[in-house]
Amino acid sequence: MFYLLDLAGVAVFAVSGALAAMHSGLDLLGVVVLASITAIGGGTLRDLLLNRHPIFWMEDPWPLYVILGAALLTVGYVQVLPIPFKALLIADALGLALFAMSGAQLAERTGHRALVVVLMGTLTGVGGGLLRDVFTAKVPLILRQDIYASAAIAGVALYLLLQRIGVPRAVAFGVSLVGIAALRLAAVAWGLELPRFTPP
Amino acid sequence: MFYLLDLAGVAVFAVSGALAAMHSGLDLLGVVVLASITAIGGGTLRDLLLNRHPIFWMEDPWPLYVILGAALLTVGYVQVLPIPFKALLIADALGLALFAMSGAQLAERTGHRALVVVLMGTLTGVGGGLLRDVFTAKVPLILRQDIYASAAIAGVALYLLLQRIGVPRAVAFGVSLVGIAALRLAAVAWGLELPRFTPP
Amino acid sequence: MFYLLDLAGVAVFAVSGALAAMHSGLDLLGVVVLASITAIGGGTLRDLLLNRHPIFWMEDPWPLYVILGAALLTVGYVQVLPIPFKALLIADALGLALFAMSGAQLAERTGHRALVVVLMGTLTGVGGGLLRDVFTAKVPLILRQDIYASAAIAGVALYLLLQRIGVPRAVAFGVSLVGIAALRLAAVAWGLELPRFTPP
Repeated sequence: MFYLLDLAGVAVFAVSGALAAMHSGLDLLGVVVLASITAIGGGTLRDLLLNRHPIFWMEDPWPLYVILGAALLTVGYVQVLPIPFKALLIADALGLALFAMSGAQLAERTGHRALVVVLMGTLTGVGGGLLRDVFTAKVPLILRQDIYASAAIAGVALYLLLQRIGVPRAVAFGVSLVGIAALRLAAVAWGLELPRFTPP
Repeated sequence: MFYLLDLAGVAVFAVSGALAAMHSGLDLLGVVVLASITAIGGGTLRDLLLNRHPIFWMEDPWPLYVILGAALLTVGYVQVLPIPFKALLIADALGLALFAMSGAQLAERTGHRALVVVLMGTLTGVGGGLLRDVFTAKVPLILRQDIYASAAIAGVALYLLLQRIGVPRAVAFGVSLVGIAALRLAAVAWGLELPRFTPP
Repeated sequence: MFYLLDLAGVAVFAVSGALAAMHSGLDLLGVVVLASITAIGGGTLRDLLLNRHPIFWMEDPWPLYVILGAALLTVGYVQVLPIPFKALLIADALGLALFAMSGAQLAERTGHRALVVVLMGTLTGVGGGLLRDVFTAKVPLILRQDIYASAAIAGVALYLLLQRIGVPRAVAFGVSLVGIAALRLAAVAWGLELPRFTPP
């Protein structure tokens, strides 16, 4: 379950990274590099912080194969079909939800406190996109105006809360996963924003 | 001693990060995220490099509570009172001094060489602000023109030097702590700069 | 062999970082800091990801001495002699080749798969320059249009391939080392580029 979730997250984030790279006019290897950074950046930061070695993509060849495949398929797709305008945002929302929940479960299994579970889930979810944005010299999406990291935080908190009130883990997991993706997509669709407190 | 120092550094850096986030017009969770990155970024990099696990904020809940409290208090304060113009710079100078000395002592206690003690102290001091600036897509303050990292380097070097000539550790510590903050604030106040060597 | 390679790579990357820092008008300590980040950034990321502790520059004083010496010599040189226009690019190409091969050999010796060897070699080669560019708020050179990370990837892949078909390791090493530097320099000289796949 963990494993397939991670691979699915890797795939959608690789697509997201590859689309962003092509959008910035990078060359073929730049596309693969940015797809990789986006896809394994969050999980790598999580593993470094939780001291889990070897890093998840070092022993298991699949994440890297999935990235290569997803990046090349994305490149090929874009050559023959018009780019789906919303594809980047949707792939990003799905990757966010998958990675946040997978990271949260990992931290939960290693016995960390609720606050650390929320942080690790959020970091796993937003880390790759954050590195993608830093490496293309943009202010990261997670710090911009709309709901992004907050969707992950709310989702993981919901996951922990549902379990505490007796909801079975698998149900809590599914609800939270869908919740994060839905919240993120709703924020994109209707331009939802958190309040801001700009000093006068 | 270590512990309270670290918490005090966490608090002032959280304020610094929260003010910077509000200054950039981020939303409420962006404020908390940037406050956290600024407050625990330097210590997290230090712990990763020194292979100290769990990372300091993973087992102890207090740093994260302090960040949440400091960020929310800062947001609240700014709503009702005019923002103190110099507050960001002063909080930053205090955080720099506190974190540099705390990081230096940690590296010293684990038996590292003087040069590594200086580097770890400096990294702990400047790491959070560096990440804060990277994540808001600015050239980090430490690389800009005035005295910043150099205040931390000079302070930690002074700390080691004073001990070598027989000054008691606690005195050396206090003198260096005040020295870093004073040097940084003096640099801000009078626009002190190091020489530059721009190629012709 | 490893050791001297690493020191040579540290020296040329320190020169590269110092030149870049002076080019951006940083002060003296900014020059040393950026020289250090450029010189040890890639190897530090490699050591963190491979869980090699202490980090290579923590126990051995030489890398840091070499950086200090190289940075100061660069600063001095630039005061009295005209800056060699191509020096930055050439130093960078040599550092890329040296670090990529050194990082690849390290990952190879610790028994990692070919793909991870290629990734670790590439990361060691491009990591320092990547951090240098991030910290001066530029889109990293490795993601820009010409051949950079791809030279490292091709070189390490060639190194593994040559060994697989029976070429002695030392020969494979030398050929790949020269190959990476030559490929990178050729890309600079003739403006070679990989194909790009900008969406229509």
